[in-house]
Amino acid sequence: MTTTLWHNARIATLDPAHGANGWGLIEDGALLTAGGQIAWVGRNRGLPSHARPAHEIDLGGALITPGLVDCHTHLVYGGQRAAEFEQRLNGASYEAIARAGGGIRSSVAATRAASEEALLASATQRARCLMAEGVTTLEIKSGYGLSLEAEARCLRVARRLGVDQRLDVRTTFLGAHALPPEFEGRPDDYIAAVCAWLPDLHAQGLVDAVDAFCEHIGFSPAQTRRVFEAAKALGLPVKLHAEQLSDQGGAALAASFGALSCDHLEHLSEAGIAAMKAAGTVAVLLPGAYYFLRETKLPPIAALRAAGVPMAVSTDHNPGTSPGLSLLLMASMACTLFRLTPLEAVQGITLHAARALGLTDRGQLAAGQRADFVAWELDHPNELAYWFGRNPCRRVIAAGLERT
Amino acid sequence: MTTTLWHNARIATLDPAHGANGWGLIEDGALLTAGGQIAWVGRNRGLPSHARPAHEIDLGGALITPGLVDCHTHLVYGGQRAAEFEQRLNGASYEAIARAGGGIRSSVAATRAASEEALLASATQRARCLMAEGVTTLEIKSGYGLSLEAEARCLRVARRLGVDQRLDVRTTFLGAHALPPEFEGRPDDYIAAVCAWLPDLHAQGLVDAVDAFCEHIGFSPAQTRRVFEAAKALGLPVKLHAEQLSDQGGAALAASFGALSCDHLEHLSEAGIAAMKAAGTVAVLLPGAYYFLRETKLPPIAALRAAGVPMAVSTDHNPGTSPGLSLLLMASMACTLFRLTPLEAVQGITLHAARALGLTDRGQLAAGQRADFVAWELDHPNELAYWFGRNPCRRVIAAGLERT
Ligand SMILES: [Zn+2]
Ligand SMILES: [Zn+2]
Repeated sequence: MTTTLWHNARIATLDPAHGANGWGLIEDGALLTAGGQIAWVGRNRGLPSHARPAHEIDLGGALITPGLVDCHTHLVYGGQRAAEFEQRLNGASYEAIARAGGGIRSSVAATRAASEEALLASATQRARCLMAEGVTTLEIKSGYGLSLEAEARCLRVARRLGVDQRLDVRTTFLGAHALPPEFEGRPDDYIAAVCAWLPDLHAQGLVDAVDAFCEHIGFSPAQTRRVFEAAKALGLPVKLHAEQLSDQGGAALAASFGALSCDHLEHLSEAGIAAMKAAGTVAVLLPGAYYFLRETKLPPIAALRAAGVPMAVSTDHNPGTSPGLSLLLMASMACTLFRLTPLEAVQGITLHAARALGLTDRGQLAAGQRADFVAWELDHPNELAYWFGRNPCRRVIAAGLERT
Repeated sequence: MTTTLWHNARIATLDPAHGANGWGLIEDGALLTAGGQIAWVGRNRGLPSHARPAHEIDLGGALITPGLVDCHTHLVYGGQRAAEFEQRLNGASYEAIARAGGGIRSSVAATRAASEEALLASATQRARCLMAEGVTTLEIKSGYGLSLEAEARCLRVARRLGVDQRLDVRTTFLGAHALPPEFEGRPDDYIAAVCAWLPDLHAQGLVDAVDAFCEHIGFSPAQTRRVFEAAKALGLPVKLHAEQLSDQGGAALAASFGALSCDHLEHLSEAGIAAMKAAGTVAVLLPGAYYFLRETKLPPIAALRAAGVPMAVSTDHNPGTSPGLSLLLMASMACTLFRLTPLEAVQGITLHAARALGLTDRGQLAAGQRADFVAWELDHPNELAYWFGRNPCRRVIAAGLERT
């Protein structure tokens, strides 16, 4: 197994063992990697004398952080909705656009019509935007196919993306995203179909987790529960689009299934927070959708913080409500719009984002963790949330190997 | 003079001569450049038969727009203010930060302490972010030196940046940006000094325009008028930071001097709009500062539109209130936060931004204009304002030459 010493770095480990300010900063730091793992992190001169790294790489004094984790995206879809965006800004109503075949149905139609290769090409282009900013782990949801065949196609694309690129992709089955036209007026029948597809998709190795959209314009808590029961029967973890537009009690429901995360949460109640805390569920904040939809109700950040619920931050990349492709911009928006501190925002796109995917092997820089890290042209990690629309990423090391 | 035919492109000329929808789209389009100018734009097959271009370059079907113009930046300064950003989000008040030497005074101190080479290096790094998105014309204001020597140093850095990079830099003297500590309690004396420095800076060829910050926390309308009189005496055009935090009547004052632009404008009155319209003054919208300061009062977009005042959009890049480095993100925010249409936003970062600098030779793609254009990995120019945190810029041609 190849060992490499990456030295001459300022390392923001995010490991509380290194200083109480939470950034876990090591000046004059170095990392020793063995294969795809971190074997040791410390001061340049503190390397154990028995270590004999095969390679040494000078990081030139760069700031190092853990690789970024985007834990909530809808990256695989056909078409895009810029024309609809333009129509709306020219005065067309949502209703008029929907009548003309716009909205999510247009994305479903375009996704169903797209070949697997076309979906892979467009998703790869988008993934590269995220990767260029240091994303090393990426969650991708299905949910624009809404048939067994099309959902499977999208999940295969997600898996292939992870194989083709130096990127760890986690797949989430989101059949319960919207009602497809052939099930118009029959949402319970559609939920039955979703539950029936799940064992098949799981058997194909396409599902790491199961998600649903619990909302008055999505699916009810009772329908969501059926999807979660189907996931539980297969031993699959669940997550939920919860309390985005209204309080449906979705967070408490998801927590009762031990959900990895509840996402959005603008209308989350105190009871929901308590249930999430008790279940160890991560709150995933999605400021890009809040921005793009011009929401005014903020998620209850202070209450989440007070309760000690870990907060992740993600792009929610999707063509309808968050066509953003910068996780660093989400860190900026998490601070500026949601009032997270820069440390919370950076933990939100690394450590807590990993936890929202059930991953404990990444998100900090410490011995035993995956060797996913990024070198930045910055002096301090708080700058990751301060600048916006700037990409200071200079090198990305994924599973111990530098991306080129 | 070298002639080049750039063919196989979809050209968004922004020239109303090509179709009434404002984008001026030419499918199967081509541009003929002669030196740094556009000699002809049209359909691939429409090139006049007497034209014998020395070179032919295939643009591969890419979407082409005019080069972007960032018409309002404070790009040259020492230090940055991420620590202050972090302190504020951890609960420190503006007052406590100011008492500890933070705020604009910390930027002034860091700028005064920085060498010309250090200022050039940091400004170049920031300019490259903007250039990577297709910016070919960049305005840079002084205003962090606040002494004759330091203001001259910053303006020299701006000029040098334009020489070193393939970028047309326009300089603006903003001595009346803030009161330096040595003039504490004596703003009129400081304005007298600013007016006295101007002929010297102008004689050094460092000033393309003159700006001021007219606000209750800046300078009064009477003080602003003195600066404008000094500019007028030298035949220099003026612009103004106007009505950002309150209605000072600054826009009408600036318009009475035939100002190129009034910038910010959240608190602009109907009288200010009418004065700007009569004077041909451009409204420069700065959504990055609105975002970063969490403003809630929108500039009067509908009234500006109704009055026919041209609207430009810019980054206002600066370390205190808008540390953003993406002009495309400003186009997104102009639509999403300010409700501009995508066409207005794109005109705002090209055509109208050029006019805000007094430049009529760029901002559209037409014969006689500068050969500044960008090739995008996009299908339609409305996507420039739809995606956010994505850089689809693939090639930049500045004054007829491709940037590499
Ligand atoms: Zn989502
Ligand atoms: Zn400004």
